Amino acid sequence: MLKRYFPILDWGRTYNGEALSSDMVAAVIVTIMLIPQSLAYALLAGLPPVVGLYASILPLVAYAIFGTSRTLAVGPVAVVSLMTASAVGAVAAQGTAEYLEAAITLAALSGVMLLVLGVLRMGFLANLLSHPVISGFITASGILIATSQLRHVLGVQGGGDTWPDMLGSLAANIGNVNPWTLAVGVPAVIFLFWVRKGLKPMLIGMGLPPKAADIAAKAGPVLAVAVSIVAVIAFDLAGKGVNITGEIPSGLPPFAMPSTDVSLIQQLIVPALLISIIGFVESVSVAQTLAAKRRQRISPDQELIGLGASNVASAFSGGYPVTGGFARSVVNFDAGAQTPAAGAFTAVGIALASLFLTPLLFSLPIAVLAATIIVAVLALVDLKTPKQLWTYSRADFAAHVATIGITLVAGVEMGVIAGVSVGLLLYLWRASRPHAAIVGRVPETEHFRNIERHKVFTADHVLSIRIDEALTFLNARWLEEYVLEQVADRPRVRHVILMCSAVNEIDASGLESLEAINHRMQDAGIKLHLSEVKGPVMDRLQRTHFPDELSGKVYLSQSRAFEEALRDNGDTFEEPKDWPRGMI
Amino acid sequence: MLKRYFPILDWGRTYNGEALSSDMVAAVIVTIMLIPQSLAYALLAGLPPVVGLYASILPLVAYAIFGTSRTLAVGPVAVVSLMTASAVGAVAAQGTAEYLEAAITLAALSGVMLLVLGVLRMGFLANLLSHPVISGFITASGILIATSQLRHVLGVQGGGDTWPDMLGSLAANIGNVNPWTLAVGVPAVIFLFWVRKGLKPMLIGMGLPPKAADIAAKAGPVLAVAVSIVAVIAFDLAGKGVNITGEIPSGLPPFAMPSTDVSLIQQLIVPALLISIIGFVESVSVAQTLAAKRRQRISPDQELIGLGASNVASAFSGGYPVTGGFARSVVNFDAGAQTPAAGAFTAVGIALASLFLTPLLFSLPIAVLAATIIVAVLALVDLKTPKQLWTYSRADFAAHVATIGITLVAGVEMGVIAGVSVGLLLYLWRASRPHAAIVGRVPETEHFRNIERHKVFTADHVLSIRIDEALTFLNARWLEEYVLEQVADRPRVRHVILMCSAVNEIDASGLESLEAINHRMQDAGIKLHLSEVKGPVMDRLQRTHFPDELSGKVYLSQSRAFEEALRDNGDTFEEPKDWPRGMI
Repeated sequence: MLKRYFPILDWGRTYNGEALSSDMVAAVIVTIMLIPQSLAYALLAGLPPVVGLYASILPLVAYAIFGTSRTLAVGPVAVVSLMTASAVGAVAAQGTAEYLEAAITLAALSGVMLLVLGVLRMGFLANLLSHPVISGFITASGILIATSQLRHVLGVQGGGDTWPDMLGSLAANIGNVNPWTLAVGVPAVIFLFWVRKGLKPMLIGMGLPPKAADIAAKAGPVLAVAVSIVAVIAFDLAGKGVNITGEIPSGLPPFAMPSTDVSLIQQLIVPALLISIIGFVESVSVAQTLAAKRRQRISPDQELIGLGASNVASAFSGGYPVTGGFARSVVNFDAGAQTPAAGAFTAVGIALASLFLTPLLFSLPIAVLAATIIVAVLALVDLKTPKQLWTYSRADFAAHVATIGITLVAGVEMGVIAGVSVGLLLYLWRASRPHAAIVGRVPETEHFRNIERHKVFTADHVLSIRIDEALTFLNARWLEEYVLEQVADRPRVRHVILMCSAVNEIDASGLESLEAINHRMQDAGIKLHLSEVKGPVMDRLQRTHFPDELSGKVYLSQSRAFEEALRDNGDTFEEPKDWPRGMI
Repeated sequence: MLKRYFPILDWGRTYNGEALSSDMVAAVIVTIMLIPQSLAYALLAGLPPVVGLYASILPLVAYAIFGTSRTLAVGPVAVVSLMTASAVGAVAAQGTAEYLEAAITLAALSGVMLLVLGVLRMGFLANLLSHPVISGFITASGILIATSQLRHVLGVQGGGDTWPDMLGSLAANIGNVNPWTLAVGVPAVIFLFWVRKGLKPMLIGMGLPPKAADIAAKAGPVLAVAVSIVAVIAFDLAGKGVNITGEIPSGLPPFAMPSTDVSLIQQLIVPALLISIIGFVESVSVAQTLAAKRRQRISPDQELIGLGASNVASAFSGGYPVTGGFARSVVNFDAGAQTPAAGAFTAVGIALASLFLTPLLFSLPIAVLAATIIVAVLALVDLKTPKQLWTYSRADFAAHVATIGITLVAGVEMGVIAGVSVGLLLYLWRASRPHAAIVGRVPETEHFRNIERHKVFTADHVLSIRIDEALTFLNARWLEEYVLEQVADRPRVRHVILMCSAVNEIDASGLESLEAINHRMQDAGIKLHLSEVKGPVMDRLQRTHFPDELSGKVYLSQSRAFEEALRDNGDTFEEPKDWPRGMI
């Protein structure tokens, strides 16, 4: 029990020197990657850069205690930062103390929600997000984030939560481009793109092993940061209008308190829920992918608790919402992390950076941070998926495109809500019209098959219907309509047999529909029979009056039901060799 | 095409004298029943009594043109009247011109929504309401309505939209009970209960045929109305504080215009949608039941248009939201109505009443109208269902009880919303954890069965999993977890075969999960195979790269897949007679 909630008790007992050295190496590499990322994502969230560092210390320690993935790298990530900016920007002005307090409160709310969902084992809620909705949301978020950062590369004012707003704001300010900022930002973007695409092949060409080349390439942003700081100082670019990070307070994270203002909490509750679910889905996907590669397991319900603890830790140490990030987790995995201790060591690395490194970052140009974001998030934009979905499933395509469109024009929250709604409605629409078939007997066998696809025997006064779906409230109405229509089309029918071999469940609505069908058939002088009802389904039906009220019988086999129904009308059942269909 | 939208063109062509006389008789009986009901339900909706008459004229004519049920009696009904009171009461004060205008606007909105849903063939939306949610809502509405009318029987002030509010308001005013009102109201309630339970047996005892006795008993309220009017005049009860109907304007319905105030429309949009759906579900249920008795059909999508047209007609003639009512439809059916023309004749009857009968209703006591409502709606309260649901299905019980509880304490709108949400969440929860089984070969056959239930052969390096559900986004995550867990438990496995005989669909999320499973298996050195994939599912998979990327093969039969997987590992497949399970 204790181990379930504290996975550290499990892996901690067998921790040894070998794991320690692997974890230390991975932690150093992830730390180098995380320093510029944490500053950049805080910028994206509209927060002071130091908040990104704070969100990269205690949350990692909390996840190391409560998380089940051995290689997940928790901390600030792009999509959640964008969602934070959108949610917090709606309740406070950027740069104010209220803005920071709202971000802290958002992390606390999100953390508490994740913890509650975890204790209630409600991980299935994440299932409401289909893959097309998630990928549509991530593509649209990538576009939104890259667009939001353009102004920092151009050195102009700007803002907006939606794509049209952002583009409009950029267009309005395009006359004020700062050439020095441009001279820093554009080369940074080009360099970082090259690092992503060209550096690794070059390093491999120079004789580095592929894995080492891959990891070295991840340090590219650090190089860009270092060079740009030197350039700013050397050419006094700050004096020429290039925005720089400025003073970052040195020291460990402070103790912070989320707000207890009820009206603020009410305003943040929906965004907090959406951030929790999106963050959870992103995190679990990457954790599962990595765990499977080493045949390890993660527990999604315990992951809710791990991420919940991380967000609570983030809130109380002056951070903002965090989750498991894709890129850093893969680097952590490739660098050889063995246990969540690697995350704790990364936290130590970031803590040291907060203590000693921040003075060096004073002259870091914002344009370079924006460049690292732009290059990172454009990898999220996936233009192949819409075409694949169009080929494979129009319903999924509709959900995907709706999510992209609504996210771009109405913002991230509406995008998620609309995507989930469209996906669920399409699902429910399909579930409300399941498949059923009129069946007949395959000659000289006891098998019954669809009369539309096979040459089978049927009888004018016996109608056999096979239902290929559980009977639930979603299709109960359909069932009534379908059976009544089939009967209305066949005035000679005296027996209706529902073949239930594929009916895995009958809920109360399904039962009531069966009762209604039974009564209506009775009114019309028709007997209703069931055949091949599954064991557990029959057990539950036995607890009701339905079997007594049924005008016909419940048969174990469809062929027995068919034979008895034939006999009941005085036909001797002798099957002629070349019985034509529909002629009995 | 024209006939689809105008069912009158269908039945109108064969209309003859026999149908005419049957329809006329039914119309007279329904008119007698409808006069007091229309006044009472208008009272329940918080509207002047004459609005109930207006809502019983043109809407019936519109339904006769557009409706597909031959016997449905459209007009004011109890539950929709209560919902109208709740929705309109939130935006205007009872008794004002704004209140009436809002009710008219609500009817127009509801009518337009029903028409749009009908044209888009969105009748399936009604499926979101499961039977337990509907019956819970109707029970709770019955309790709310009866409680709301108690004050009229007691002759006290009162109000409230929720049960606690209503009871509190009654308790606060209990000291002001008007004894004369009580002297009219209580006997009326007792008489009407007796009419419902005792009059029919008595009439049968007196030699009347059962059907005639049944119909005669429905005229009981008219008798109560007549006697009470005489009593009010004879004893001057109005002067002693008994509330009476007062002047009802004579004449045909006026031409009315819904409001075009955007903020009013915004406030009414959600209630209008809920009223539309609840009204549609109530109406279609009774229409289907009655149609089936005569082996007729109704078209649910066209019913949306019929009810939409009725509500639009109601709005433009000064009425309020209407739908097909249960009790009156059954009376119409039993009285022998043959076609929707019976409804049109009823409209003529009510029009005549509006022209000539309203002066007689001046002295009708409100307490008697309240008594007819109380007796009518207490029949809706169903206390058996919760117990039955508890025995049959805990999930359905939870949805039912949640709907009752929330409707009583938070009002009708929240009740419907909560009921639908609870029902859907429980459904989605179950759908996200479908059934799957590890299967093995039944000795000396080609059948594969669950290893938990049957004595079957399995092999340590071949894992066969049968999935008993369509693969959709709801269970895609589950599928990955399930397969990976099974593999993690069996380190010797080299082949995984997914048996897809019960997989009716694979959506884009399901496909992506299969791809992920394939890649993860590949990373772990395991081949993934599919077997018995259904034709339409395979057709769609062929349009993707999945079959090429699959590390294993797609087999037509599970037994072939199993045999080849065994051979691949160098085993000669010779099946010994008494092969112990799990020993290959």
